[in-house]
Amino acid sequence: MITSTSNPKIKNIMNLKKKGKTRKEQDVFIVEGLKMFREAPKEHIVDTYVSADFYQKNRLLLQGIKVEIVDERVFQSVSDTKTPQGILSVVKQFHYCLHDLLGKEEPHLLLLENLQDPGNLGTILRTAEGAGVTGIFMSSDTVDIYNPKTIRSTMGSVYRMPFLYVEEFAGVIEKLKERDISVYAAHLKGPGFYDEQNYCTGTAFMVGNEGNGLSDEAAALADACIRIPMCGQVESLNAAVAASILMYEVLRQRRKK
Amino acid sequence: MITSTSNPKIKNIMNLKKKGKTRKEQDVFIVEGLKMFREAPKEHIVDTYVSADFYQKNRLLLQGIKVEIVDERVFQSVSDTKTPQGILSVVKQFHYCLHDLLGKEEPHLLLLENLQDPGNLGTILRTAEGAGVTGIFMSSDTVDIYNPKTIRSTMGSVYRMPFLYVEEFAGVIEKLKERDISVYAAHLKGPGFYDEQNYCTGTAFMVGNEGNGLSDEAAALADACIRIPMCGQVESLNAAVAASILMYEVLRQRRKK
Repeated sequence: MITSTSNPKIKNIMNLKKKGKTRKEQDVFIVEGLKMFREAPKEHIVDTYVSADFYQKNRLLLQGIKVEIVDERVFQSVSDTKTPQGILSVVKQFHYCLHDLLGKEEPHLLLLENLQDPGNLGTILRTAEGAGVTGIFMSSDTVDIYNPKTIRSTMGSVYRMPFLYVEEFAGVIEKLKERDISVYAAHLKGPGFYDEQNYCTGTAFMVGNEGNGLSDEAAALADACIRIPMCGQVESLNAAVAASILMYEVLRQRRKK
Repeated sequence: MITSTSNPKIKNIMNLKKKGKTRKEQDVFIVEGLKMFREAPKEHIVDTYVSADFYQKNRLLLQGIKVEIVDERVFQSVSDTKTPQGILSVVKQFHYCLHDLLGKEEPHLLLLENLQDPGNLGTILRTAEGAGVTGIFMSSDTVDIYNPKTIRSTMGSVYRMPFLYVEEFAGVIEKLKERDISVYAAHLKGPGFYDEQNYCTGTAFMVGNEGNGLSDEAAALADACIRIPMCGQVESLNAAVAASILMYEVLRQRRKK
Protein backbone atom coordinates (compact mmCIF):
# COMPACT_ATOMS: atom_id res chain seq x y z
CA MET A 1 0.00 0.00 0.00
CA ILE A 2 1.21 3.49 -0.88
CA THR A 3 1.07 5.57 2.29
CA SER A 4 2.98 8.72 1.43
CA THR A 5 2.35 11.64 -0.89
CA SER A 6 6.09 11.68 -1.59
CA ASN A 7 5.94 8.22 -3.15
CA PRO A 8 7.45 8.60 -6.66
CA LYS A 9 4.36 7.09 -8.33
CA ILE A 10 2.08 9.54 -6.54
CA LYS A 11 4.36 12.41 -7.44
CA ASN A 12 4.28 11.30 -11.05
CA ILE A 13 0.45 11.22 -11.05
CA MET A 14 0.42 14.77 -9.70
CA ASN A 15 2.75 15.85 -12.48
CA LEU A 16 0.69 14.07 -15.12
CA LYS A 17 -2.40 15.93 -13.92
CA LYS A 18 -0.73 19.32 -13.92
CA LYS A 19 1.57 19.29 -16.93
CA GLY A 20 0.70 18.68 -20.53
CA LYS A 21 4.43 18.38 -21.27
CA THR A 22 4.81 15.47 -18.84
CA ARG A 23 1.74 13.79 -20.33
CA LYS A 24 3.21 14.14 -23.79
CA GLU A 25 6.64 12.84 -22.77
CA GLN A 26 5.14 9.76 -21.12
CA ASP A 27 2.39 9.46 -23.76
CA VAL A 28 -0.28 8.92 -21.08
CA PHE A 29 -3.04 10.79 -19.23
CA ILE A 30 -4.99 10.37 -16.01
CA VAL A 31 -8.65 9.36 -15.71
CA GLU A 32 -10.67 9.30 -12.51
CA GLY A 33 -13.78 7.47 -11.38
CA LEU A 34 -15.46 4.16 -12.05
CA LYS A 35 -17.19 5.13 -15.30
CA MET A 36 -13.93 6.37 -16.82
CA PHE A 37 -12.15 3.19 -15.65
CA ARG A 38 -14.84 0.88 -17.02
CA GLU A 39 -15.06 2.55 -20.42
CA ALA A 40 -11.29 2.78 -20.98
CA PRO A 41 -10.05 0.42 -23.72
CA LYS A 42 -8.31 -2.30 -21.69
CA GLU A 43 -5.18 -2.27 -23.86
CA HIS A 44 -4.76 1.44 -23.08
CA ILE A 45 -4.70 1.08 -19.30
CA VAL A 46 -1.14 1.32 -18.01
CA ASP A 47 -1.70 1.41 -14.22
CA THR A 48 -4.68 1.62 -11.90
CA TYR A 49 -4.67 3.05 -8.39
CA VAL A 50 -7.47 2.49 -5.88
CA SER A 51 -8.06 3.82 -2.40
CA ALA A 52 -7.97 1.25 0.42
CA ASP A 53 -11.67 1.79 0.98
CA PHE A 54 -12.55 1.35 -2.70
CA TYR A 55 -10.47 -1.84 -2.77
CA GLN A 56 -12.36 -3.29 0.20
CA LYS A 57 -15.75 -2.57 -1.36
CA ASN A 58 -14.97 -3.63 -4.94
CA ARG A 59 -12.83 -6.77 -4.66
CA LEU A 60 -15.08 -8.61 -7.10
CA LEU A 61 -14.89 -5.88 -9.72
CA LEU A 62 -11.12 -5.72 -9.41
CA GLN A 63 -10.53 -9.48 -9.66
CA GLY A 64 -7.71 -10.23 -12.07
CA ILE A 65 -6.84 -6.54 -12.45
CA LYS A 66 -3.44 -5.29 -11.34
CA VAL A 67 -4.01 -2.38 -8.97
CA GLU A 68 -1.94 -0.35 -6.55
CA ILE A 69 -3.69 0.30 -3.27
CA VAL A 70 -3.35 3.82 -1.94
CA ASP A 71 -3.97 5.14 1.56
CA GLU A 72 -7.25 7.10 1.76
CA ARG A 73 -5.62 10.40 2.64
CA VAL A 74 -3.00 10.07 -0.09
CA PHE A 75 -5.68 9.22 -2.65
CA GLN A 76 -7.63 12.31 -1.59
CA SER A 77 -4.55 14.45 -2.18
CA VAL A 78 -4.19 13.37 -5.84
CA SER A 79 -7.91 13.49 -6.62
CA ASP A 80 -9.61 16.36 -8.42
CA THR A 81 -12.85 15.94 -6.51
CA LYS A 82 -13.75 16.58 -2.89
CA THR A 83 -15.26 13.11 -2.47
CA PRO A 84 -13.20 10.92 -4.81
CA GLN A 85 -14.69 7.65 -5.99
CA GLY A 86 -11.38 5.99 -5.17
CA ILE A 87 -10.20 4.76 -8.54
CA LEU A 88 -7.78 6.40 -10.95
CA SER A 89 -5.94 5.07 -13.99
CA VAL A 90 -2.95 6.04 -16.07
CA VAL A 91 -4.10 5.58 -19.67
CA LYS A 92 -2.11 5.56 -22.90
CA GLN A 93 -2.78 8.51 -25.23
CA PHE A 94 -4.55 7.97 -28.54
CA HIS A 95 -2.93 8.51 -31.92
CA TYR A 96 -5.20 8.96 -34.90
CA CYS A 97 -4.58 9.67 -38.55
CA LEU A 98 -6.73 11.69 -40.95
CA HIS A 99 -8.41 8.53 -42.20
CA ASP A 100 -9.71 7.69 -38.69
CA LEU A 101 -11.52 11.04 -38.49
CA LEU A 102 -13.35 10.79 -41.74
CA GLY A 103 -15.41 7.78 -40.65
CA LYS A 104 -17.12 5.44 -43.05
CA GLU A 105 -19.75 7.19 -45.14
CA GLU A 106 -20.55 10.88 -44.87
CA PRO A 107 -17.98 12.50 -42.58
CA HIS A 108 -19.26 14.88 -39.90
CA LEU A 109 -16.37 16.93 -38.60
CA LEU A 110 -15.49 19.78 -36.27
CA LEU A 111 -12.52 22.09 -36.60
CA LEU A 112 -11.93 23.89 -33.31
CA GLU A 113 -9.76 26.98 -33.34
CA ASN A 114 -7.90 27.97 -30.19
CA LEU A 115 -10.54 26.77 -27.69
CA GLN A 116 -9.29 27.64 -24.20
CA ASP A 117 -11.81 26.33 -21.71
CA PRO A 118 -11.06 22.69 -20.83
CA GLY A 119 -14.65 22.06 -19.72
CA ASN A 120 -16.01 23.42 -22.99
CA LEU A 121 -13.73 21.14 -25.01
CA GLY A 122 -14.80 18.09 -22.99
CA THR A 123 -18.47 18.99 -23.37
CA ILE A 124 -17.97 19.34 -27.13
CA LEU A 125 -16.44 15.86 -27.33
CA ARG A 126 -19.35 14.40 -25.35
CA THR A 127 -21.98 16.09 -27.51
CA ALA A 128 -20.04 15.25 -30.67
CA GLU A 129 -20.21 11.53 -29.96
CA GLY A 130 -23.94 11.92 -29.26
CA ALA A 131 -24.49 13.78 -32.53
CA GLY A 132 -22.61 11.22 -34.62
CA VAL A 133 -19.55 13.36 -35.32
CA THR A 134 -16.81 11.26 -36.96
CA GLY A 135 -13.79 13.31 -35.91
CA ILE A 136 -12.49 16.54 -34.39
CA PHE A 137 -9.59 18.66 -35.62
CA MET A 138 -8.07 21.17 -33.23
CA SER A 139 -5.63 23.99 -33.93
CA SER A 140 -2.36 23.42 -32.07
CA ASP A 141 -3.12 26.34 -29.70
CA THR A 142 -6.30 24.66 -28.45
CA VAL A 143 -6.30 23.55 -24.79
CA ASP A 144 -4.83 20.07 -24.19
CA ILE A 145 -7.49 17.41 -24.65
CA TYR A 146 -5.80 15.39 -21.88
CA ASN A 147 -6.28 18.19 -19.32
CA PRO A 148 -8.03 16.46 -16.37
CA LYS A 149 -10.97 18.92 -16.57
CA THR A 150 -11.47 18.14 -20.26
CA ILE A 151 -11.21 14.40 -19.65
CA ARG A 152 -13.82 14.57 -16.87
CA SER A 153 -16.33 16.53 -18.94
CA THR A 154 -16.03 14.15 -21.91
CA MET A 155 -17.75 11.52 -19.72
CA GLY A 156 -15.83 8.83 -21.62
CA SER A 157 -16.23 10.17 -25.16
CA VAL A 158 -12.48 10.87 -25.23
CA TYR A 159 -11.99 7.10 -25.63
CA ARG A 160 -14.14 6.95 -28.72
CA MET A 161 -13.92 10.26 -30.60
CA PRO A 162 -11.05 10.39 -33.12
CA PHE A 163 -9.16 13.70 -32.99
CA LEU A 164 -6.09 15.42 -34.38
CA TYR A 165 -4.16 18.54 -33.44
CA VAL A 166 -3.04 20.37 -36.56
CA GLU A 167 -0.56 23.19 -37.10
CA GLU A 168 -2.83 24.99 -39.54
CA PHE A 169 -6.28 24.42 -40.98
CA ALA A 170 -5.45 25.25 -44.62
CA GLY A 171 -3.85 21.89 -45.37
CA VAL A 172 -6.63 19.93 -43.69
CA ILE A 173 -9.36 21.87 -45.44
CA GLU A 174 -7.73 21.23 -48.79
CA LYS A 175 -7.92 17.50 -48.07
CA LEU A 176 -11.53 17.77 -46.94
CA LYS A 177 -12.48 19.58 -50.14
CA GLU A 178 -10.77 16.86 -52.23
CA ARG A 179 -13.22 14.48 -50.56
CA ASP A 180 -16.23 16.72 -51.32
CA ILE A 181 -16.72 17.64 -47.67
CA SER A 182 -18.35 21.07 -47.30
CA VAL A 183 -16.67 23.34 -44.79
CA TYR A 184 -18.80 25.88 -42.87
CA ALA A 185 -17.46 28.62 -40.64
CA ALA A 186 -19.58 29.49 -37.61
CA HIS A 187 -19.20 33.25 -37.76
CA LEU A 188 -21.26 36.11 -36.37
CA LYS A 189 -21.02 37.81 -39.75
CA GLY A 190 -22.20 34.73 -41.64
CA PRO A 191 -24.73 35.88 -44.23
CA GLY A 192 -26.87 32.75 -43.93
CA PHE A 193 -28.37 30.91 -40.98
CA TYR A 194 -27.04 27.55 -39.87
CA ASP A 195 -30.29 25.77 -40.68
CA GLU A 196 -30.43 26.82 -44.33
CA GLN A 197 -27.70 24.44 -45.54
CA ASN A 198 -27.96 20.77 -46.42
CA TYR A 199 -25.73 18.72 -44.14
CA CYS A 200 -26.67 15.27 -45.42
CA THR A 201 -23.41 14.91 -47.30
CA GLY A 202 -19.92 15.34 -45.81
CA THR A 203 -19.93 18.34 -43.46
CA ALA A 204 -17.31 20.14 -41.37
CA PHE A 205 -17.86 23.08 -39.01
CA MET A 206 -15.19 25.51 -37.94
CA VAL A 207 -15.83 26.93 -34.47
CA GLY A 208 -13.74 29.64 -32.84
CA ASN A 209 -12.71 30.36 -29.30
CA GLU A 210 -14.68 31.65 -26.32
CA GLY A 211 -13.54 35.24 -26.37
CA ASN A 212 -13.08 36.15 -30.00
CA GLY A 213 -14.97 33.63 -32.11
CA LEU A 214 -13.42 32.33 -35.30
CA SER A 215 -10.54 34.29 -36.85
CA ASP A 216 -11.16 35.93 -40.22
CA GLU A 217 -8.27 33.90 -41.69
CA ALA A 218 -9.89 30.63 -40.68
CA ALA A 219 -13.34 31.78 -41.82
CA ALA A 220 -11.90 32.67 -45.25
CA LEU A 221 -11.02 29.00 -45.80
CA ALA A 222 -14.65 27.89 -45.52
CA ASP A 223 -17.12 27.26 -48.35
CA ALA A 224 -19.67 29.37 -46.50
CA CYS A 225 -20.08 31.33 -43.29
CA ILE A 226 -23.15 30.50 -41.25
CA ARG A 227 -24.55 31.96 -38.10
CA ILE A 228 -26.90 30.96 -35.33
CA PRO A 229 -29.65 33.58 -34.93
CA MET A 230 -29.77 35.30 -31.54
CA CYS A 231 -32.65 37.18 -29.96
CA GLY A 232 -32.41 39.86 -27.29
CA GLN A 233 -29.09 41.49 -26.56
CA VAL A 234 -27.04 38.30 -26.77
CA GLU A 235 -23.79 38.92 -28.66
CA SER A 236 -22.56 35.34 -28.83
CA LEU A 237 -23.24 31.88 -27.47
CA ASN A 238 -20.99 29.72 -25.34
CA ALA A 239 -18.62 27.83 -27.70
CA ALA A 240 -19.83 24.39 -26.57
CA VAL A 241 -23.47 25.46 -26.95
CA ALA A 242 -22.89 26.86 -30.44
CA ALA A 243 -21.04 23.72 -31.55
CA SER A 244 -23.82 21.55 -30.08
CA ILE A 245 -26.57 23.37 -31.96
CA LEU A 246 -24.67 22.93 -35.23
CA MET A 247 -23.85 19.25 -34.67
CA TYR A 248 -27.43 18.43 -33.73
CA GLU A 249 -28.77 20.20 -36.80
CA VAL A 250 -26.66 17.77 -38.86
CA LEU A 251 -28.06 14.78 -36.98
CA ARG A 252 -31.60 16.13 -37.31
CA GLN A 253 -31.28 16.46 -41.08
CA ARG A 254 -29.58 13.09 -41.52
CA ARG A 255 -32.18 11.24 -39.42
CA LYS A 256 -34.95 12.70 -41.60
CA LYS A 257 -33.21 11.83 -44.88
CA MET B 1 -9.79 55.10 -1.11
CA ILE B 2 -10.35 51.74 0.54
CA THR B 3 -6.95 50.32 1.42
CA SER B 4 -7.70 47.41 3.72
CA THR B 5 -9.32 44.02 3.22
CA SER B 6 -10.83 44.40 6.68
CA ASN B 7 -12.85 47.43 5.55
CA PRO B 8 -16.50 46.60 6.39
CA LYS B 9 -17.65 47.26 2.81
CA ILE B 10 -15.01 44.90 1.43
CA LYS B 11 -15.95 42.30 4.01
CA ASN B 12 -19.59 42.63 3.00
CA ILE B 13 -18.73 42.12 -0.68
CA MET B 14 -16.84 38.94 0.23
CA ASN B 15 -19.89 37.71 2.13
CA LEU B 16 -22.23 38.59 -0.72
CA LYS B 17 -20.08 36.57 -3.08
CA LYS B 18 -19.92 33.54 -0.83
CA LYS B 19 -23.33 33.33 0.80
CA GLY B 20 -26.71 33.07 -0.86
CA LYS B 21 -28.31 33.81 2.51
CA THR B 22 -26.52 37.16 2.81
CA ARG B 23 -27.51 38.03 -0.77
CA LYS B 24 -31.12 37.22 0.04
CA GLU B 25 -31.14 39.23 3.28
CA GLN B 26 -29.69 42.31 1.59
CA ASP B 27 -31.65 41.64 -1.65
CA VAL B 28 -28.57 42.26 -3.80
CA PHE B 29 -25.87 40.40 -5.71
CA ILE B 30 -22.38 41.13 -7.06
CA VAL B 31 -21.44 41.60 -10.70
CA GLU B 32 -17.90 41.96 -12.03
CA GLY B 33 -16.41 43.46 -15.16
CA LEU B 34 -17.20 46.27 -17.55
CA LYS B 35 -19.77 44.42 -19.66
CA MET B 36 -21.78 43.44 -16.57
CA PHE B 37 -21.57 47.03 -15.26
CA ARG B 38 -22.64 48.58 -18.57
CA GLU B 39 -25.60 46.27 -19.12
CA ALA B 40 -26.95 46.52 -15.56
CA PRO B 41 -30.23 48.46 -15.35
CA LYS B 42 -29.11 51.78 -13.83
CA GLU B 43 -31.90 51.80 -11.23
CA HIS B 44 -30.67 48.43 -9.94
CA ILE B 45 -27.09 49.51 -9.22
CA VAL B 46 -26.61 50.10 -5.51
CA ASP B 47 -22.84 50.64 -5.28
CA THR B 48 -19.90 50.47 -7.64
CA TYR B 49 -16.30 49.78 -6.67
CA VAL B 50 -13.35 50.38 -8.98
CA SER B 51 -9.66 49.69 -8.59
CA ALA B 52 -7.37 52.73 -8.47
CA ASP B 53 -5.90 51.75 -11.81
CA PHE B 54 -9.32 51.33 -13.46
CA TYR B 55 -10.37 54.72 -12.11
CA GLN B 56 -7.31 56.42 -13.61
CA LYS B 57 -7.92 54.88 -17.02
CA ASN B 58 -11.70 55.33 -17.20
CA ARG B 59 -12.43 58.73 -15.68
CA LEU B 60 -14.54 59.69 -18.67
CA LEU B 61 -16.68 56.56 -18.48
CA LEU B 62 -17.21 57.06 -14.76
CA GLN B 63 -18.17 60.75 -14.99
CA GLY B 64 -21.26 61.42 -12.89
CA ILE B 65 -21.24 57.92 -11.40
CA LYS B 66 -20.75 57.46 -7.68
CA VAL B 67 -17.89 55.02 -7.19
CA GLU B 68 -15.70 53.85 -4.34
CA ILE B 69 -12.03 53.60 -5.25
CA VAL B 70 -10.27 50.52 -3.97
CA ASP B 71 -6.58 49.83 -3.65
CA GLU B 72 -5.33 47.46 -6.40
CA ARG B 73 -4.33 44.68 -4.00
CA VAL B 74 -7.60 44.88 -2.09
CA PHE B 75 -9.58 44.77 -5.33
CA GLN B 76 -7.62 41.71 -6.40
CA SER B 77 -8.57 39.99 -3.15
CA VAL B 78 -12.33 40.38 -3.72
CA SER B 79 -12.21 39.50 -7.42
CA ASP B 80 -13.09 36.11 -8.86
CA THR B 81 -10.59 36.40 -11.67
CA LYS B 82 -6.82 36.37 -11.69
CA THR B 83 -6.61 39.55 -13.75
CA PRO B 84 -9.67 41.54 -12.64
CA GLN B 85 -10.99 44.24 -14.95
CA GLY B 86 -11.20 46.53 -11.93
CA ILE B 87 -14.94 47.22 -11.69
CA LEU B 88 -17.53 45.54 -9.51
CA SER B 89 -21.07 46.50 -8.60
CA VAL B 90 -23.60 45.62 -5.95
CA VAL B 91 -26.86 45.18 -7.83
CA LYS B 92 -30.44 44.88 -6.55
CA GLN B 93 -32.06 41.47 -7.09
CA PHE B 94 -34.92 41.06 -9.54
CA HIS B 95 -38.44 40.13 -8.53
CA TYR B 96 -40.73 38.76 -11.21
CA CYS B 97 -44.27 37.45 -11.19
CA LEU B 98 -45.77 34.68 -13.32
CA HIS B 99 -47.08 37.24 -15.79
CA ASP B 100 -43.55 38.54 -16.52
CA LEU B 101 -42.41 35.07 -17.57
CA LEU B 102 -45.18 34.37 -20.02
CA GLY B 103 -44.14 37.17 -22.38
CA LYS B 104 -46.42 38.69 -24.94
CA GLU B 105 -47.55 36.20 -27.53
CA GLU B 106 -46.52 32.55 -27.53
CA PRO B 107 -44.64 31.84 -24.30
CA HIS B 108 -41.41 29.86 -24.55
CA LEU B 109 -40.48 28.58 -21.12
CA LEU B 110 -37.98 26.43 -19.26
CA LEU B 111 -38.61 24.58 -16.01
CA LEU B 112 -35.30 23.57 -14.45
CA GLU B 113 -35.33 20.91 -11.78
CA ASN B 114 -32.56 20.86 -9.17
CA LEU B 115 -29.77 22.10 -11.45
CA GLN B 116 -26.57 22.14 -9.40
CA ASP B 117 -23.80 23.50 -11.59
CA PRO B 118 -23.69 27.33 -11.42
CA GLY B 119 -21.92 27.58 -14.78
CA ASN B 120 -24.54 25.41 -16.46
CA LEU B 121 -27.35 27.58 -15.10
CA GLY B 122 -25.66 30.75 -16.33
CA THR B 123 -25.05 29.24 -19.76
CA ILE B 124 -28.70 28.24 -19.94
CA LEU B 125 -29.80 31.82 -19.20
CA ARG B 126 -27.47 33.17 -21.89
CA THR B 127 -28.68 30.68 -24.50
CA ALA B 128 -32.28 31.19 -23.42
CA GLU B 129 -32.16 34.89 -24.18
CA GLY B 130 -30.58 34.06 -27.54
CA ALA B 131 -33.31 31.54 -28.35
CA GLY B 132 -36.15 33.90 -27.45
CA VAL B 133 -37.18 32.19 -24.21
CA THR B 134 -39.71 34.33 -22.32
CA GLY B 135 -39.05 33.02 -18.82
CA ILE B 136 -37.38 30.38 -16.63
CA PHE B 137 -38.89 28.55 -13.67
CA MET B 138 -36.52 26.82 -11.27
CA SER B 139 -37.30 24.34 -8.51
CA SER B 140 -36.35 25.76 -5.10
CA ASP B 141 -33.44 23.29 -4.80
CA THR B 142 -31.79 24.67 -7.95
CA VAL B 143 -28.46 26.45 -7.43
CA ASP B 144 -28.75 30.17 -6.60
CA ILE B 145 -29.02 32.23 -9.77
CA TYR B 146 -27.06 35.00 -7.98
CA ASN B 147 -24.05 32.74 -7.41
CA PRO B 148 -21.08 34.69 -8.86
CA LYS B 149 -20.22 31.82 -11.25
CA THR B 150 -23.77 31.78 -12.59
CA ILE B 151 -23.84 35.55 -12.97
CA ARG B 152 -20.56 35.52 -14.89
CA SER B 153 -21.65 32.82 -17.32
CA THR B 154 -24.97 34.59 -18.07
CA MET B 155 -22.88 37.31 -19.82
CA GLY B 156 -25.57 39.83 -18.88
CA SER B 157 -28.67 37.79 -19.68
CA VAL B 158 -29.47 37.67 -15.95
CA TYR B 159 -30.58 41.31 -16.30
CA ARG B 160 -33.09 40.53 -19.01
CA MET B 161 -34.41 36.99 -18.52
CA PRO B 162 -37.46 36.83 -16.22
CA PHE B 163 -37.23 33.92 -13.74
CA LEU B 164 -39.01 32.47 -10.73
CA TYR B 165 -38.03 29.93 -8.07
CA VAL B 166 -41.00 27.74 -7.23
CA GLU B 167 -41.64 25.28 -4.41
CA GLU B 168 -43.18 22.71 -6.70
CA PHE B 169 -43.86 22.42 -10.42
CA ALA B 170 -47.41 21.03 -10.16
CA GLY B 171 -49.05 24.41 -9.42
CA VAL B 172 -47.11 26.20 -12.15
CA ILE B 173 -47.86 23.55 -14.75
CA GLU B 174 -51.56 23.76 -13.94
CA LYS B 175 -51.40 27.48 -14.72
CA LEU B 176 -49.46 26.87 -17.92
CA LYS B 177 -52.04 24.37 -19.09
CA GLU B 178 -54.85 26.83 -18.39
CA ARG B 179 -53.08 29.09 -20.88
CA ASP B 180 -52.77 26.28 -23.49
CA ILE B 181 -49.02 26.05 -23.07
CA SER B 182 -47.75 22.56 -23.90
CA VAL B 183 -45.34 21.11 -21.35
CA TYR B 184 -42.62 18.71 -22.53
CA ALA B 185 -40.34 16.69 -20.28
CA ALA B 186 -36.82 16.10 -21.56
CA HIS B 187 -36.45 12.50 -20.46
CA LEU B 188 -34.19 9.69 -21.63
CA LYS B 189 -37.23 7.41 -21.70
CA GLY B 190 -39.26 9.82 -23.84
CA PRO B 191 -41.02 7.83 -26.53
CA GLY B 192 -40.73 10.55 -29.15
CA PHE B 193 -37.86 12.68 -30.36
CA TYR B 194 -37.60 16.38 -29.54
CA ASP B 195 -37.93 17.42 -33.17
CA GLU B 196 -41.23 15.67 -33.81
CA GLN B 197 -43.38 18.18 -31.89
CA ASN B 198 -44.77 21.51 -33.01
CA TYR B 199 -43.41 24.30 -30.83
CA CYS B 200 -44.96 27.24 -32.65
CA THR B 201 -47.58 27.72 -29.95
CA GLY B 202 -46.86 28.15 -26.22
CA THR B 203 -44.12 25.70 -25.20
CA ALA B 204 -42.43 24.79 -21.92
CA PHE B 205 -39.56 22.33 -21.42
CA MET B 206 -38.75 20.59 -18.16
CA VAL B 207 -35.04 19.80 -17.84
CA GLY B 208 -33.52 17.81 -14.97
CA ASN B 209 -30.24 17.98 -13.15
CA GLU B 210 -26.74 17.00 -14.23
CA GLY B 211 -26.47 13.70 -12.43
CA ASN B 212 -29.91 12.18 -12.54
CA GLY B 213 -31.91 13.90 -15.25
CA LEU B 214 -35.54 14.80 -14.64
CA SER B 215 -37.37 13.04 -11.79
CA ASP B 216 -40.21 10.68 -12.71
CA GLU B 217 -42.59 12.81 -10.61
CA ALA B 218 -41.78 15.93 -12.61
CA ALA B 219 -41.91 14.04 -15.92
CA ALA B 220 -45.39 12.74 -15.03
CA LEU B 221 -46.70 16.32 -15.02
CA ALA B 222 -45.79 16.89 -18.68
CA ASP B 223 -48.05 16.56 -21.70
CA ALA B 224 -45.36 14.46 -23.39
CA CYS B 225 -41.87 13.14 -22.78
CA ILE B 226 -39.35 13.86 -25.49
CA ARG B 227 -35.76 12.84 -25.93
CA ILE B 228 -32.74 13.99 -27.86
CA PRO B 229 -31.31 11.11 -29.92
CA MET B 230 -27.78 10.08 -29.02
CA CYS B 231 -25.30 8.12 -31.12
CA GLY B 232 -22.37 6.07 -29.84
CA GLN B 233 -22.16 5.17 -26.17
CA VAL B 234 -23.32 8.54 -24.88
CA GLU B 235 -25.78 8.08 -22.01
CA SER B 236 -26.80 11.71 -21.56
CA LEU B 237 -25.87 15.22 -22.62
CA ASN B 238 -24.67 18.08 -20.47
CA ALA B 239 -27.77 19.82 -19.02
CA ALA B 240 -26.96 23.18 -20.64
CA VAL B 241 -26.34 21.50 -24.00
CA ALA B 242 -29.60 19.54 -23.84
CA ALA B 243 -31.57 22.66 -22.90
CA SER B 244 -29.88 24.62 -25.70
CA ILE B 245 -30.76 22.05 -28.36
CA LEU B 246 -34.40 22.14 -27.26
CA MET B 247 -34.63 25.94 -27.08
CA TYR B 248 -33.05 26.36 -30.50
CA GLU B 249 -35.42 23.83 -32.03
CA VAL B 250 -38.25 26.10 -30.89
CA LEU B 251 -36.62 29.14 -32.44
CA ARG B 252 -35.90 27.21 -35.66
CA GLN B 253 -39.56 26.21 -36.01
CA ARG B 254 -40.90 29.66 -35.12
CA ARG B 255 -38.58 31.41 -37.61
CA LYS B 256 -39.82 29.15 -40.38
CA LYS B 257 -43.47 29.63 -39.53
